[in-house]
Amino acid sequence: MSPLRTSTSRLTRQLAKQPWTLPGHNGVSIPSSIQRASMASVVPPVTPDSTSRQGPTAMVFMNMGGPSTTAEVGDFLSRLFADGDLIPLGPLQGYLGPLISRRRTPKIQKQYAAIGGGSPIRKWSEYQCSEMCKLLDKMSPETAPHKPYVAFRYANPLTEEMYETLLNDGFGRGRGGRAVAFTQYPQYSCSTTGSSLNELWKWRTRLEGKRSVVGDGKSMTPATTSDPEGAITWSVIDRWPTHPGLVEAFAQNIEAKLAEYPPERRKDVVILFSAHSLPMSVVNRGDPYPAEVAATVHAVMTRLGHSNPYRLCWQSQVGPSAWLGAQTSDTVKQYVARGQTDLILVPIAFTSDHIETLYELDQEVMHEDAKGHPGVKRAESLNGNRVFIQALADVAHKHLQSGESCSRQMGLRCQGCKSERCLEQKRFFAGEQAKILPTVR
Amino acid sequence: MSPLRTSTSRLTRQLAKQPWTLPGHNGVSIPSSIQRASMASVVPPVTPDSTSRQGPTAMVFMNMGGPSTTAEVGDFLSRLFADGDLIPLGPLQGYLGPLISRRRTPKIQKQYAAIGGGSPIRKWSEYQCSEMCKLLDKMSPETAPHKPYVAFRYANPLTEEMYETLLNDGFGRGRGGRAVAFTQYPQYSCSTTGSSLNELWKWRTRLEGKRSVVGDGKSMTPATTSDPEGAITWSVIDRWPTHPGLVEAFAQNIEAKLAEYPPERRKDVVILFSAHSLPMSVVNRGDPYPAEVAATVHAVMTRLGHSNPYRLCWQSQVGPSAWLGAQTSDTVKQYVARGQTDLILVPIAFTSDHIETLYELDQEVMHEDAKGHPGVKRAESLNGNRVFIQALADVAHKHLQSGESCSRQMGLRCQGCKSERCLEQKRFFAGEQAKILPTVR
Repeated sequence: MSPLRTSTSRLTRQLAKQPWTLPGHNGVSIPSSIQRASMASVVPPVTPDSTSRQGPTAMVFMNMGGPSTTAEVGDFLSRLFADGDLIPLGPLQGYLGPLISRRRTPKIQKQYAAIGGGSPIRKWSEYQCSEMCKLLDKMSPETAPHKPYVAFRYANPLTEEMYETLLNDGFGRGRGGRAVAFTQYPQYSCSTTGSSLNELWKWRTRLEGKRSVVGDGKSMTPATTSDPEGAITWSVIDRWPTHPGLVEAFAQNIEAKLAEYPPERRKDVVILFSAHSLPMSVVNRGDPYPAEVAATVHAVMTRLGHSNPYRLCWQSQVGPSAWLGAQTSDTVKQYVARGQTDLILVPIAFTSDHIETLYELDQEVMHEDAKGHPGVKRAESLNGNRVFIQALADVAHKHLQSGESCSRQMGLRCQGCKSERCLEQKRFFAGEQAKILPTVR
Repeated sequence: MSPLRTSTSRLTRQLAKQPWTLPGHNGVSIPSSIQRASMASVVPPVTPDSTSRQGPTAMVFMNMGGPSTTAEVGDFLSRLFADGDLIPLGPLQGYLGPLISRRRTPKIQKQYAAIGGGSPIRKWSEYQCSEMCKLLDKMSPETAPHKPYVAFRYANPLTEEMYETLLNDGFGRGRGGRAVAFTQYPQYSCSTTGSSLNELWKWRTRLEGKRSVVGDGKSMTPATTSDPEGAITWSVIDRWPTHPGLVEAFAQNIEAKLAEYPPERRKDVVILFSAHSLPMSVVNRGDPYPAEVAATVHAVMTRLGHSNPYRLCWQSQVGPSAWLGAQTSDTVKQYVARGQTDLILVPIAFTSDHIETLYELDQEVMHEDAKGHPGVKRAESLNGNRVFIQALADVAHKHLQSGESCSRQMGLRCQGCKSERCLEQKRFFAGEQAKILPTVR
């Protein structure tokens, strides 16, 4: 925001919302009466930084998570199959979910045992987030310090744990503060990012949500609710499927793998992008994920100069209902059977290793479906990739500068959506717009 | 191709393939012995142009076509339902196809009557192609003159009619010549572009294809086939889903429609991109179309700065089997029922008006599903749009410069493909590479 456009009334509004913030961008002095008036009634901000204008900023990485040990598999699966946003089991979800998760636990425990005893997703998420925050502190001093948090949907640290930590760290509870929910699914699905946002909205409502304002006792006016003063102001990075840095990181990993083939075979290697599939009921409801995954694929192929033939296929289907195909497993079997044995699998919808890469692709697809053919390879996951972490910082920086609470696209419910929670969640996050102090406009 | 890289042996090979061509780029003189040797046995090219190096070039627009009069509807539908590439009816295609087409003819005739008595697609295709050729003559004098042709899959001018015209105009039949099959479906599907290429390959084989070379009668060597000398050299523009000019033309049409809404409502208008759907059996076979349509949508939204919420939906499902959704008709009904009545429909996979825009979107979706709500509008089709025609010329120009017979992606069969014709067709078009004289490299 240009200091020239900063009016006193606007500052007052901002200070009332974010009392710990001392805007005064670029040396604009704030009338001390305004400072006193708004600072008087609130607890001073935690970790105040005399050089920052709007910080600290909490950067919360949202992802599905995975069990860090095989002992956590049972809890992980029971949360996963209880989530109707991810696995819609209908009105019997409460009965079928636990049944399926209990039955699958021993099998999935063996899979986690086979990849080293647990998922590396927590390690990578915490590393990526803290590295990104270091970059952000330099790129965006006005919102520094940036404090890293991770919230998983089905494993520790769960959303409620992250939220309690935020509160204990001095955000919210009357002290305001700004937090950015940054989805680590580059492409938006109601099953993934949507589910994480529903969970975040639920815990935000429970832990510092609206409170009842009792009627005056004379009229029949029912109790209404009002937003508490000094709650955390949230904004959401809800999708970033074609960010140039993300695309560059994917492309470099593919090029590194292509370089392992002899030059005369290289241009004919088939690139198989693989993303987690969705049930057709979710696709047909209008979920934007398949189109956004395709956008990532096209951007990566454009960056590669369309040097190779490719296909986008879909993995990890579960159960008897119809899922979006073609299936990754079938695809590899069919190409290998036809003699097309130079294939690079590229996990395109996840940013770090997890069971779907380390077990499903590396073990099941490459060793069983492709019979261990040496021409079938997998591109590295992004994990600790520096280009990727720089991309995360750039996505976050642009978001902080934009002053937007979420994308315009996030405000639109799917045409077939019947979820009231989804409606309320979108209303809440889009409504945060009014509280956000833009740094640019 | 740089003249410095032109060797005599390479020239000889090229001249043997394309005897009517006098390369001599940029003033490189061709030894007269080579010219004589290769020119001696062939008919001189028709419409030779002393200023051009490789022309004339036939530019063949491929599309599905539509009946120009209601009397042609029966034939149109019978060809359409006979095409297993478009509507896979299995082994009963020959029986079911005519049955379905006869039953649907009266209904579809009424639809064509309602849009003025016929499809405008022939008029637009001929106009777009001839206008593009005029631009190409200026942009690419080395391949001029560019001669416009149209080949429809289900209506006149059919592929065989176009091919006969090409031959009568002096291409092929021992005289060589270059033709470019330019799909007018920006996104590749085996059902659309693939079907047109199968048809082109079939007629090319019938009209100037391989001929039997009888064995020497002594050995058991079977008769083999060899490509006839002086056949037309084909190359294919098989997809162009995110060409910047195409994206610009779509975006401008959307902006023009957005401008019709009052400013305060404009940013909340939902943009509904609509493309012809595919049966899930085709999607699950690995058809690249859904991902390429999504790439177009993402490119257009990026060009628009993601100014509005949007969805991609799919229209024109036929019959009881599963098709890719969400359906356009359901989408509009659901949003309108929810009070979201500012919607712009954008036909994103067709480049001119046809029954799916003029009847299905304008009549069925807008007047029946949306009950004629004035907030529901449709963006113009590209038709005679100058930005679009300039884009066509640019796509063609880059293709002519590339020296490629088709994209690398076209060479890869879908993982679930079992069509021998598709295999042979791809082999043929990819094999044309050896005959193409690149102008750049």
